Amino acid sequence: MKIGILGGGQLAQMLVLAGIPLGYRFVALDPNPEAPAARVAPLINAEYDDPDALDRLADQVDVVTYDFENVPADVARRLAGHVEVHPPGQALAAAQDRLPEKRLFGGLGIDTAPYRPVDSREDLQNGVAELGLPALLKTRRLGYDGKGQFLLRRTDDVGDAWEHLHGQPAILEGFVEFEREVSLLCVRSTRDRVAFYPLVENRHRGGILRVSRAPYADAALQQQAESHGRALLAELDYVGVLAIEFFLRDGVLIANEMAPRVHNSGHWTIEGAQTSQFENHLRAITGLPLGDTATVGASAMVNCLGGEPALADLAAIPGAHVHSYGKLPRYGRKVGHVTLTASDPETLEQRLPALLERIEDSTDAPGERAG
Amino acid sequence: MKIGILGGGQLAQMLVLAGIPLGYRFVALDPNPEAPAARVAPLINAEYDDPDALDRLADQVDVVTYDFENVPADVARRLAGHVEVHPPGQALAAAQDRLPEKRLFGGLGIDTAPYRPVDSREDLQNGVAELGLPALLKTRRLGYDGKGQFLLRRTDDVGDAWEHLHGQPAILEGFVEFEREVSLLCVRSTRDRVAFYPLVENRHRGGILRVSRAPYADAALQQQAESHGRALLAELDYVGVLAIEFFLRDGVLIANEMAPRVHNSGHWTIEGAQTSQFENHLRAITGLPLGDTATVGASAMVNCLGGEPALADLAAIPGAHVHSYGKLPRYGRKVGHVTLTASDPETLEQRLPALLERIEDSTDAPGERAG
Repeated sequence: MKIGILGGGQLAQMLVLAGIPLGYRFVALDPNPEAPAARVAPLINAEYDDPDALDRLADQVDVVTYDFENVPADVARRLAGHVEVHPPGQALAAAQDRLPEKRLFGGLGIDTAPYRPVDSREDLQNGVAELGLPALLKTRRLGYDGKGQFLLRRTDDVGDAWEHLHGQPAILEGFVEFEREVSLLCVRSTRDRVAFYPLVENRHRGGILRVSRAPYADAALQQQAESHGRALLAELDYVGVLAIEFFLRDGVLIANEMAPRVHNSGHWTIEGAQTSQFENHLRAITGLPLGDTATVGASAMVNCLGGEPALADLAAIPGAHVHSYGKLPRYGRKVGHVTLTASDPETLEQRLPALLERIEDSTDAPGERAG
Repeated sequence: MKIGILGGGQLAQMLVLAGIPLGYRFVALDPNPEAPAARVAPLINAEYDDPDALDRLADQVDVVTYDFENVPADVARRLAGHVEVHPPGQALAAAQDRLPEKRLFGGLGIDTAPYRPVDSREDLQNGVAELGLPALLKTRRLGYDGKGQFLLRRTDDVGDAWEHLHGQPAILEGFVEFEREVSLLCVRSTRDRVAFYPLVENRHRGGILRVSRAPYADAALQQQAESHGRALLAELDYVGVLAIEFFLRDGVLIANEMAPRVHNSGHWTIEGAQTSQFENHLRAITGLPLGDTATVGASAMVNCLGGEPALADLAAIPGAHVHSYGKLPRYGRKVGHVTLTASDPETLEQRLPALLERIEDSTDAPGERAG
């Protein structure tokens, strides 16, 4: 079995590391010749929309998957004509545009922040009048890690934000005063088997995930989240890992966004779950039985943004598992993560501050969470 | 940090899979262009004693290690003149020849089977007279997985066994009626830090390891084993993972042999220990603090010999973690292993028969344990 991956970033690298023990072979397509996955798999070094490169990829693999969701829709279509492609194009399409994504959630009875489409300055002004301030203005497409988001606090911010959009289609979201952010990792196989990981609690800063803790144990909330996950998987005829990010307010989950791929908030599963999200994604897209999603003890994953502490310092922390992506440091860039494991949440919380301090000291990342 | 590995087999592959997350890069040297490690690292495709290839390896790496112990001694010496090499040459030398290995054990007060060097037919006859029958005749060099071993049951077997030796230096070992076989995985770093994994219980068949169970929990025996391990590590000024195989008889550990490398009886540590033997070997040879060697639940590792069950069948077994080496099936060849994990030994034993049955049905391996 040979698997093609569109994108050769750290997610592709971790998919390869999970798949080699299963006997799978890989090839990744990425415009960057130094892409992390190139350390462990052959790389087709080409643009994502290079038709010859896509054909070469399709010709040599049994199935294609993605390491990021902003693959142009016609690329997915071109591939799907030649080879099995998971997850499906409609999931990519929904995740690439915040407006159909919100409508998808709403159509399935999943709560979201109140929102208004913004195609004109007038739309924006009307939206602010209807939803009030603060509110978040977000480009509909190509936003990730807080990029393309503007927090509107006062009426005066509206003009500035509109200028920054440069006419890109956007949506305005009412500000959700949430208590926590949690995410659910769902997985569905080509054989219609479904599994869910325990909820994860996430802390962001500057729009970028900093810390994920698992499990976030709350049986009622888990049930609510899985019910939403099941509806989405069925609606999209989804295959692979799907991540859904929620705000939690007054015991109700409010869907923020989804990612049709393995997700940063699931990296803890490498050490912290019986089967990692990467292995389960591969099991799902190749029609294998899904692996056990139960946790092993308690875990916290901390992202290294803009830089990494010295390996010797991290290795000295009991229970720390280092994942370096081999990327050059750059302001705010995810260059690695560390998962801390412990037998129970109390021990985890005792050990975590030392790790956080190490990582804060040596990394370089944006400030406050924007949204 | 770039690490060179002499040998590109499954041990090299698993070292690479453990080292990529640490940010390490690898290159392996192997005469087989299809060596398992070539799937995840660049390969120098050359004979082990090719001086140009060895120089090319030494020139591009910071440290060299081995995936098998039968590296010619002058190869290790040539490399050590150019680059750091771990484990040290004297450990290779001792592990390559059963006679100095036995003398090393004896010199440190570690029990072994009674033995006699055999360089002539007369030595063999005298040995049999002194040690009695049954006894094992073993070539001193290049024996592994039961190869080069002859079980002498009756006086009539002596002539046959002698013929089979073709004049190779050998030793005769008295037969140890052991109750169990256990092994100890030791690790020592360039910074003189030492760690031990819990004892592992091993079951062989046809001279090849079939099943390893961990932990084999016996505090007194663990102490006895660690004392032997500590003595060996110090005597050899050892760096890296060292495996020692013991027979257990009447509460006493009798050293059978050692392997100066990561070891098949330590594969369970990938899922069953806080830090795998592969990561700890890399930590040791690169001067990092060693990782926690404590177990996570209970584990059993089963080798796939001569063939592998269908991946879908293995993936359906709860707690089964598949490791395929990507090797062509061949009679008795280790082509993969499966580690079964469970929260406790009872659950493990309940799950194990289904896995063993699957593997027995689809693999093809020699019969009775020869020695």
